[in-house]
Amino acid sequence: MPAAGVKKIIIDTDPGVDDAMAIFLALRSPEVEIIGLTTIFGNVYTTLATRNALHLLEVADRTDIPVAEGSHVTITKGTKLRIADFVHGVDGLGNQNFPPPQGKPIDMSAPDFLIEQANLYPGKVTVVALGPLTNVALAIQQDPSFVKNIGQIILLGGAFAVNGNVNPAAEANIFGDPDAADIVFTSGADILAVGINVTHQVVFTDADRDKLASSTGTFAQYLCKILGVYFDYHYEAYGTKGVYLHDPTTVLAAINPSLITYTEGAVRVQTNGITRGLTLLYNKQKRFAEITEWTDQPSVKVAVTVDAPAVVKLVMERLMD
Amino acid sequence: MPAAGVKKIIIDTDPGVDDAMAIFLALRSPEVEIIGLTTIFGNVYTTLATRNALHLLEVADRTDIPVAEGSHVTITKGTKLRIADFVHGVDGLGNQNFPPPQGKPIDMSAPDFLIEQANLYPGKVTVVALGPLTNVALAIQQDPSFVKNIGQIILLGGAFAVNGNVNPAAEANIFGDPDAADIVFTSGADILAVGINVTHQVVFTDADRDKLASSTGTFAQYLCKILGVYFDYHYEAYGTKGVYLHDPTTVLAAINPSLITYTEGAVRVQTNGITRGLTLLYNKQKRFAEITEWTDQPSVKVAVTVDAPAVVKLVMERLMD
Repeated sequence: MPAAGVKKIIIDTDPGVDDAMAIFLALRSPEVEIIGLTTIFGNVYTTLATRNALHLLEVADRTDIPVAEGSHVTITKGTKLRIADFVHGVDGLGNQNFPPPQGKPIDMSAPDFLIEQANLYPGKVTVVALGPLTNVALAIQQDPSFVKNIGQIILLGGAFAVNGNVNPAAEANIFGDPDAADIVFTSGADILAVGINVTHQVVFTDADRDKLASSTGTFAQYLCKILGVYFDYHYEAYGTKGVYLHDPTTVLAAINPSLITYTEGAVRVQTNGITRGLTLLYNKQKRFAEITEWTDQPSVKVAVTVDAPAVVKLVMERLMD
Repeated sequence: MPAAGVKKIIIDTDPGVDDAMAIFLALRSPEVEIIGLTTIFGNVYTTLATRNALHLLEVADRTDIPVAEGSHVTITKGTKLRIADFVHGVDGLGNQNFPPPQGKPIDMSAPDFLIEQANLYPGKVTVVALGPLTNVALAIQQDPSFVKNIGQIILLGGAFAVNGNVNPAAEANIFGDPDAADIVFTSGADILAVGINVTHQVVFTDADRDKLASSTGTFAQYLCKILGVYFDYHYEAYGTKGVYLHDPTTVLAAINPSLITYTEGAVRVQTNGITRGLTLLYNKQKRFAEITEWTDQPSVKVAVTVDAPAVVKLVMERLMD
């Protein structure tokens, strides 16, 4: 039975090497209680995301946590999915050929589960969204009270005033479903966006990996197995001997909000053309003569700085147990 | 007769209060020789831009400099023009009701004049483009050798990793003709883009204006008359008791390149949707797995820092003479 004051979180996830790390980290964090995982395409297709989510909970011996399968398609149907198997391996988990999970997802869709839990604990549930925002956007569209009932949405997404990671304009999660992202950003919900302008400050080095490998803990051993492909990708793409902790940083923003600072403003997403998936924050420093697409849109929080050494330290401490 | 080593410049302009300041500044700068003005819509419609260009040369007693009238429409015809008369006054020059000029533009279009001069002095002419890039894009389209023959194109345009000034996404000159801007940025010419991320660092305060007003010089007196509307606009839009020296900074980048520093990379312009007119620089720090719209595009220079006090000092020294 979790103690009072523990934050209920639902992780919307497309596991994914760093998703696995983030889920394990949350499981080891007494500040939060995972009340469910919802799955989405992104690093892998949704079917595989569900399989991997179930698998990771079995590795953690936490099959008490429900998994709800999410959308298989973008919110504007007909868009070809972009699957980042070249980042995480074709199985999403470092090409390790793990056996299929024993468990099954619950008989409820991810958006329905999100809506149900938000209604059950009004203002008390935090969604930590680690993939494209399709499930969250569907929940917003299906239930007008979701925006009011959900506590906070902390999302990994966007490249604010920096180059993207899919192309120079777009970050992968927003690019995965730009229309869904624009629905979420303009919904009026309490939103904290953690973009790659922040997560690229948090590097897990090969020395950190060596240290993690010295632990005999289940999670440490498991993660060191799957991290190889992810390290290889980063070396190829960025020339770094280290990997960015996108998802763990985002989960830690829910666990310990003081690790990041943020600014506030209206965010819109470009949904077509060469900068499709670009996130643009209006900082409200100028009063425009004309009505713009940002005018009268609700403010969201956008992470600006992160205490990167503290993030890496927490990741190591909690995963080496 | 200008001395050897003097840089030949053509100013493509939509006067405009800060255009007037930039033109006067260039006329007072022995480092450059203005071999012509070409006109474009932007702060005013093209017809009025031509009238104002002729007028300013008459104020300066420099009617020896030819004025070539530019395009009246964007490169993709049918786009409604956005005219910034609320920034510069309905006459573009601070609502001063100056008499019409005596002179006339030459019997050659702006793109033809740009092409002619580039052919006449291969590699020796710098275009200083202070408005939308339609004329320059037309010159590039009309003469395949223009890109090779023109020395450099120094342009005021773009909002690199900052909010725009037309809306949160776009800077006014690029927004004025995004298709033209994309043609110019991807042309392979030697380009230096000075964006509002740089020009917003250069503030001409009301104290500077008072000092300028104390000069009995023709240019100082003239400029103090027309600056009122421009100051009013800045106070309304930005809450500042000072104005941004967009055009003077750009002209000074031609006069004294050491005043700015720049980075290099491929720049593309979003031409539709809510971020229409957004400029996006690819800094080449990541190697993308997929071909992107920035792949294999030529590098351009994008200004990053400016010695703002030195710019203001030069503006004052040269205009108070």
